[in-house]
Amino acid sequence: MSLPSKYLQMLSTVTSDGELCMELVEKDMPEPKPGQIIVRVEATPINPSDHGVMFGWSNMAAASSSGSGADTVLTAPVPEQGMRVMKARIDQALPVGNEGAGTVVAAGEGDYAQSLLGKVVAVMGGGMYGQYRAVDAMMALPLHEGHTAKDGASCFVNPLTALCFLETMRGEGHTAIVHTAAASNLGQMLVRICQADGVDLVNIVRKQEQEDLLRGMGAKYVVNSSKDSFMADLTDAIHETGATLGFDATGGGKLASDILSAMEAAAARTPGAYSIYGSVAHKQVYLYGGLDTSPTTLTRGYGMAWGVGGWLLPNFLAKAGQDVAVRLRTRVANELKTTFASHYTDEISLSEALQADVVAKYNAKTTGQKFLICPQKDL
Amino acid sequence: MSLPSKYLQMLSTVTSDGELCMELVEKDMPEPKPGQIIVRVEATPINPSDHGVMFGWSNMAAASSSGSGADTVLTAPVPEQGMRVMKARIDQALPVGNEGAGTVVAAGEGDYAQSLLGKVVAVMGGGMYGQYRAVDAMMALPLHEGHTAKDGASCFVNPLTALCFLETMRGEGHTAIVHTAAASNLGQMLVRICQADGVDLVNIVRKQEQEDLLRGMGAKYVVNSSKDSFMADLTDAIHETGATLGFDATGGGKLASDILSAMEAAAARTPGAYSIYGSVAHKQVYLYGGLDTSPTTLTRGYGMAWGVGGWLLPNFLAKAGQDVAVRLRTRVANELKTTFASHYTDEISLSEALQADVVAKYNAKTTGQKFLICPQKDL
Repeated sequence: MSLPSKYLQMLSTVTSDGELCMELVEKDMPEPKPGQIIVRVEATPINPSDHGVMFGWSNMAAASSSGSGADTVLTAPVPEQGMRVMKARIDQALPVGNEGAGTVVAAGEGDYAQSLLGKVVAVMGGGMYGQYRAVDAMMALPLHEGHTAKDGASCFVNPLTALCFLETMRGEGHTAIVHTAAASNLGQMLVRICQADGVDLVNIVRKQEQEDLLRGMGAKYVVNSSKDSFMADLTDAIHETGATLGFDATGGGKLASDILSAMEAAAARTPGAYSIYGSVAHKQVYLYGGLDTSPTTLTRGYGMAWGVGGWLLPNFLAKAGQDVAVRLRTRVANELKTTFASHYTDEISLSEALQADVVAKYNAKTTGQKFLICPQKDL
Repeated sequence: MSLPSKYLQMLSTVTSDGELCMELVEKDMPEPKPGQIIVRVEATPINPSDHGVMFGWSNMAAASSSGSGADTVLTAPVPEQGMRVMKARIDQALPVGNEGAGTVVAAGEGDYAQSLLGKVVAVMGGGMYGQYRAVDAMMALPLHEGHTAKDGASCFVNPLTALCFLETMRGEGHTAIVHTAAASNLGQMLVRICQADGVDLVNIVRKQEQEDLLRGMGAKYVVNSSKDSFMADLTDAIHETGATLGFDATGGGKLASDILSAMEAAAARTPGAYSIYGSVAHKQVYLYGGLDTSPTTLTRGYGMAWGVGGWLLPNFLAKAGQDVAVRLRTRVANELKTTFASHYTDEISLSEALQADVVAKYNAKTTGQKFLICPQKDL
């Protein structure tokens, strides 16, 4: 198989002039080092977790694009506060795209790397929005026979995040979970995993159709935050499930605080669960996303045994260790077309991903809408 | 030694009618059970941590008192939101007073209990705002020869809290601490402990005289939150010390978030400490008090490796285990008149503690002002 000598990769730069600039840059095709493989990237999703590296704190409402094909360039102004927050990345061209899948088209020395030649593998390693990617063979997850790059493109971020919610739950001694933005791709996966594992899950959604969707999947506890009865419904569901752990995708506003308040109210109903300093059991809400960029407001009427904090998959995996990672990856590969199936509403090329009108669509983060970049598609 | 058959104890009740009622109630003197001792309480401090049980979410600005001596009664209205939060304690008469010291005047069967007869001991066990208190002998800390009940009255809450800040620091892998309300009794203790243990401490104060006080004690890092240069000063101090752990006594407002922002800005100056998801090291701020009852606001410009949560001494000690508790208590007894010396501005009787004008003074929580109840003082 002969490889092209050059390939295109998407890079994102915040310039010291206060501008975000994203473009496709030509790179030399590397020689695979010992233990390395070269993957021809065929499918790579745009996840909410990619948006941070792509757009950072830029004003995307004012984004515009110029050029076409390989020369498409997306720019957006960065407000002053954004420049302060992004100080550490100014003038660095950052590769983007957390995960993806494709065919192994070259391999360096080493039996394992060589054994992957021609196989379809999934990769989480950053820099996946490009036509090719060199990675350590050990980082690639070979898909089962018959599974395509599109099947495996979202193998890591959502599946591992959902699985690691349950790992976190078990590791920190909780027995049930509250999840927000629960009708998302990730949320639906979590519903399936919790059903399979017999874990009670309280799903928080904002709309009736999301409620219907999850109930249609067999979800038992679904509460709608736009209803007047939200806090009462949430407290009831938490009381029934005993959930003392929440994962919040929105991050901002008062939702995390509302979850803690409902946990506290549920504990107050339970004999022995309450002391003069509030409920005794530790109540934790992790913010794993930032769909709402407004400040997080905590009203603190929930005693002293509570915590709120950021939660990031790579940080969790680094702490959990290699054995846990292998166990979870194996499960994902085995259940790729069932529990961990992802659905895409749009398939776009690398250059389309830089067109302002397309960006506006996927940056809206509409529930149910999910974009897949196909880097081999014509620019 | 013959004991009176009755004694007075302070109780706090939130009634279902929406009123806080605090009074002195006559109790029968108990017979000490095997292993128990009866302590004649001679000195018991009013700590910020007592206020929650005493006053809860009542409107103390509208408090009034009636009667005199043993019949003094303090009442205050409880707003509707307060009633919701305090649901679990409605119509229960709760004993108050976390800690105190006094003379062992009776002891039940058992060598250890008997050996304490006539000794001055400190006790943390709740219900200390009373003339007598029956406790398990194992819960009492015998003071060294020559130390008085007043010396030992504040043996537990402040000393153990300050020591457990350092235990938390070591246990969670941090190497330096940020502390707010740093000129408090507790703050000054923490300065002395950190000096003795060689731990870097960043002290946050609000006033020039507090800054001067701490510098006079030899504190190296003191930053004043009322200065325009506060965030820059705080970032410098955190950069120099490498602090990734904060303890905040105020709880409300944006101070906890400011500390995390300064930690993030300090990390951005340090090569290798920063990734695209923000700084890599976990940054934690514990809220151990609620001097500011307004909501906590988190602006979340500090990546994903951060946490904010409640911190409560009994919860920490329960997790740390008996060996740690014994080690820390021994240190407190040994350094009672040096590292752990407390100073009181006012000594009052049990009935004075229920007079509305006196309550207004100690409820103001003015830095430097500290009240001691002397339950043997004439009512």
